[in-house]
Amino acid sequence: MPVDHAAATLLSAFDNVPDFAKGAVRDLRVRWALEETGRPYCPQYLDAMKPKPEGYRDWQPFGQVPAFDDGTVRLFESGAILLYLGEQDERLLPRDPASRWTATAWLFAALNSVEPALMPIVNLDFFLAGQPGTVEARPAFERMAHRQLKSTEAALEDKEWFAGAFSIADIMMACVLRNVDHTDMLSAYPALSAFKARAEARPAFQRARADQLAGFREPT
Amino acid sequence: MPVDHAAATLLSAFDNVPDFAKGAVRDLRVRWALEETGRPYCPQYLDAMKPKPEGYRDWQPFGQVPAFDDGTVRLFESGAILLYLGEQDERLLPRDPASRWTATAWLFAALNSVEPALMPIVNLDFFLAGQPGTVEARPAFERMAHRQLKSTEAALEDKEWFAGAFSIADIMMACVLRNVDHTDMLSAYPALSAFKARAEARPAFQRARADQLAGFREPT
Repeated sequence: MPVDHAAATLLSAFDNVPDFAKGAVRDLRVRWALEETGRPYCPQYLDAMKPKPEGYRDWQPFGQVPAFDDGTVRLFESGAILLYLGEQDERLLPRDPASRWTATAWLFAALNSVEPALMPIVNLDFFLAGQPGTVEARPAFERMAHRQLKSTEAALEDKEWFAGAFSIADIMMACVLRNVDHTDMLSAYPALSAFKARAEARPAFQRARADQLAGFREPT
Repeated sequence: MPVDHAAATLLSAFDNVPDFAKGAVRDLRVRWALEETGRPYCPQYLDAMKPKPEGYRDWQPFGQVPAFDDGTVRLFESGAILLYLGEQDERLLPRDPASRWTATAWLFAALNSVEPALMPIVNLDFFLAGQPGTVEARPAFERMAHRQLKSTEAALEDKEWFAGAFSIADIMMACVLRNVDHTDMLSAYPALSAFKARAEARPAFQRARADQLAGFREPT
């Protein structure tokens, strides 16, 4: 739940993005984790379409979101923030070493084995649209993406979540898979599709998404 | 130091890869971390060009390397393995919370903000070479990569390492930057170039790289 008065936990987010990004900006990952544990936070809004305020890159070196500050630790990267939140609450990251490290491995897998395979599709379809070669190169990148999705589908099999109990691995993987919501790529993967639907049905996801959407300023 | 007798720590690696990958396969990241702390390990070799042995995907779901098993924890993803090793040795991950989380943020940044921007270049130049649109689309992907490198350069500035003392963040970032060693992309970034040279000059990196190279079978 975002709070608009002084709060211990600050989270940077955008109040203005291109339409295709609404509901998919990466602060969603952290909002979702915070909602799962009922932890209030205070969004710090920036305009994605304008130069970032002086000093913001000291907090988030890439000028992106999210960045996080709870008065104890100040950090960036959605993966690092989820791991930090997970260490503080076993509803986000199990405590027994085997489950904890399986969840951590899947957190990294979402970010380094799956998302890098899907981002070229997002870039070709949106950020690089209209540039030379982007239409022609897309099938090759799509084949690479399917190879990683196929492996992820096979690993999930009939499991409910990636590491036993629901964890930050599932928050991250569901958000990563949402990158290609504008395509039908997931339709070939019944386990991943059902997993994503199950994750998105969680009340904490619903609240996080609604709060991200509510933070965007109306177009002028 | 790899050991060829039974050892507590197992690490999967390839003994056969295309020439362009030699010295750059991702088990290098873990070998390097293990060398920094003088921890012996036993490489478990696979052929990258052949189907993986039955059961390997239970250990590494994407059929890639590295996968790790020290008898206590079995895990995959180079980022997760480095984090696990870091938690066990402060020479890899500082103990005070601020430094620890800064290093963790940069570990994730290397894997999710820098490497995904560089991998399209690697894919276009090697894995997808010759496929339609790949030559034409390269400049657009190269511009995206430079945007992330520019931010990384600005964040490093005149610092020796990314998070104070040398850490897993530096191992990961140096290895990620090595992805584009076949290009002159880093030449525009004096801080990153000096950082990478400093990292590669460490005896532990030299040993890890030599051991990876020694593990490749001669071409038949």
